[in-house]
Amino acid sequence: MSADLLQRTINAIQPVDQRLLAEARACLDRLTKPVGSLGRLEDLAAQYVGICGNLRPLVPRPAIVTFAADHGVTAEGVSAYPSEVTAQMVLNFLRGGAGINVLASHVGAVVRVVDIGVAYDFGSLSGLLDRKIAPGTKNLAIGPAMSREEALQALAVGIELGNALAEEGFGLVGTGDMGIGNTTPSSAVTVAMTGQPVSEVTGRGAGLDDRGYRRKIEVIEQALAINRPDRRDPVDVLSKVGGYELGGIAGLILGAAAHRLPVVLDGFISGAAALVAMALQPLCRDYLIASHLSVECGHRAVLEKLDLKPLLDLDLRLGEGTGACLGIGLVQASVKILTGMATFEDAGVSDRKT
Amino acid sequence: MSADLLQRTINAIQPVDQRLLAEARACLDRLTKPVGSLGRLEDLAAQYVGICGNLRPLVPRPAIVTFAADHGVTAEGVSAYPSEVTAQMVLNFLRGGAGINVLASHVGAVVRVVDIGVAYDFGSLSGLLDRKIAPGTKNLAIGPAMSREEALQALAVGIELGNALAEEGFGLVGTGDMGIGNTTPSSAVTVAMTGQPVSEVTGRGAGLDDRGYRRKIEVIEQALAINRPDRRDPVDVLSKVGGYELGGIAGLILGAAAHRLPVVLDGFISGAAALVAMALQPLCRDYLIASHLSVECGHRAVLEKLDLKPLLDLDLRLGEGTGACLGIGLVQASVKILTGMATFEDAGVSDRKT
Repeated sequence: MSADLLQRTINAIQPVDQRLLAEARACLDRLTKPVGSLGRLEDLAAQYVGICGNLRPLVPRPAIVTFAADHGVTAEGVSAYPSEVTAQMVLNFLRGGAGINVLASHVGAVVRVVDIGVAYDFGSLSGLLDRKIAPGTKNLAIGPAMSREEALQALAVGIELGNALAEEGFGLVGTGDMGIGNTTPSSAVTVAMTGQPVSEVTGRGAGLDDRGYRRKIEVIEQALAINRPDRRDPVDVLSKVGGYELGGIAGLILGAAAHRLPVVLDGFISGAAALVAMALQPLCRDYLIASHLSVECGHRAVLEKLDLKPLLDLDLRLGEGTGACLGIGLVQASVKILTGMATFEDAGVSDRKT
Repeated sequence: MSADLLQRTINAIQPVDQRLLAEARACLDRLTKPVGSLGRLEDLAAQYVGICGNLRPLVPRPAIVTFAADHGVTAEGVSAYPSEVTAQMVLNFLRGGAGINVLASHVGAVVRVVDIGVAYDFGSLSGLLDRKIAPGTKNLAIGPAMSREEALQALAVGIELGNALAEEGFGLVGTGDMGIGNTTPSSAVTVAMTGQPVSEVTGRGAGLDDRGYRRKIEVIEQALAINRPDRRDPVDVLSKVGGYELGGIAGLILGAAAHRLPVVLDGFISGAAALVAMALQPLCRDYLIASHLSVECGHRAVLEKLDLKPLLDLDLRLGEGTGACLGIGLVQASVKILTGMATFEDAGVSDRKT
């Protein structure tokens, strides 16, 4: 059933409207500014129009979806923080005390917090979306992180959240993650999908020391050697060396794109998930906006593979969707430029000398 | 009298509070995120605290001051747009149809539009601050752009506007400019203040063709040869090869810094003005925040001389204060992070393993 939903969603994704995108550029060129002088804001506005299919869009109402999950591989000592921090931070999200709460509020975004695989029983908790597939992945250093069916379930969770956001009238989706240890599967997925060497795409996560960092590289190499993920089969990669939140994010991207919703990617974890989504449906790439370049070194290889240029480079490495919020602020600004500025004609301003 | 005001303002500028800045960093390190993981947002928050002298600042109310002026040097054919566009754009600002209106509103900033030297008689116009020194500068290719007294007047206009913003309770000041032809004096000032070759710091402004671009370089070289501005005397540089809006911005920087108000610089014109301000009072440098790196090639040399790293690189080259608005959004976000996030202790989140 999850496989059916995935296939239907993949099939529903259409190319963005290039004709409308060109029309948006022509509109931008009539506004009272030198042609192209708002640079990437103009690119964003045109992309937004091409995606949503409306030449006079409203300023989009944004939602961030932050997927939380745990990782069996933390048993190998690959993180500077203990695993229980994942659940503690979920509670912090629900109380509004985390970075994501502050930055989402700054840009007027709603935050949806999703337990897709946290190793803690929250019971029934107001504000938390319970989509738990399992209490954390298995240790990918000694076998597959999850079954193929569980990987499909994680994708389905994301797709259904994308469907729900479209139904609720959101116009812009940001991705987010919380999961102690999740840079390890993200690096493993990046290696599997890009062919880059492990050491090139593995960083220090939330703050590993030298010894922990060397151990992390060994663990990822071991995981890839034992699991042998098949690059031509992105679900295989996700299940063997991924994580539940990566699956959720990949599904969210597909679900949003199927509804012509632009997706603002956060950092490295979101980018690794986007590699999975793009391998499943290359058309979804044009729905993606890379908010920032993370300090986490694998992110560069991810963005190159996605052929996306990040909007910001602010040395961020928090995750949660914090970078996506800042990107959302720029997308909103770009739409306001398109729809709020006067034209040369309206304003009686002389255009350039001919 | 203008010279007195300038000297008093220069004397009033104090170093930023390094002790408080360090305390802000310690506060940021107690928040529920890996240490330093919000990167340059954390730097901004600490700088903001060091400048304003308050460890728990309110989210600052921002104002953009957009100085408009004309330039006699446009007679030499150094701009792609006719001079009358300066006045037309001032009217567009007042009607709310320009890029600066849209982006200022996006970040909740007030826009103050100042006629400091437009070659048009606006009469009495609601919303326009009439501080006209002259209807445009003289042609700097054949003699000084303005007298020394006029340069001091331009600085005084900016200082007084900075004083007024402080009195009105604004907490953050953005700089902006409008003036057809003003990349020419900005390049000339940059050459005079940095010693870079003209061709290295001269760009195409609002859109010069190859022929216009070669002409612009010749004009700037001629202006510098004829006027021989003295780098050790920034008022001399401003008067001989500057512009009224550059003087206004330089004064605004000094006035704001004297009141411990952070100044978010827009692009190349604001940066060239900041070179004048910093030469008058090197302490003002720590009050500056560079919002973005402009497409206009001289901006890189300016920021190097100021020793400032831009927050954004979005291929902007509009001016007006548009880039400053985007920078203001990031400063606001940084203050919210400092004051809005929970600490590890408050939130019951485990800190890193020791």
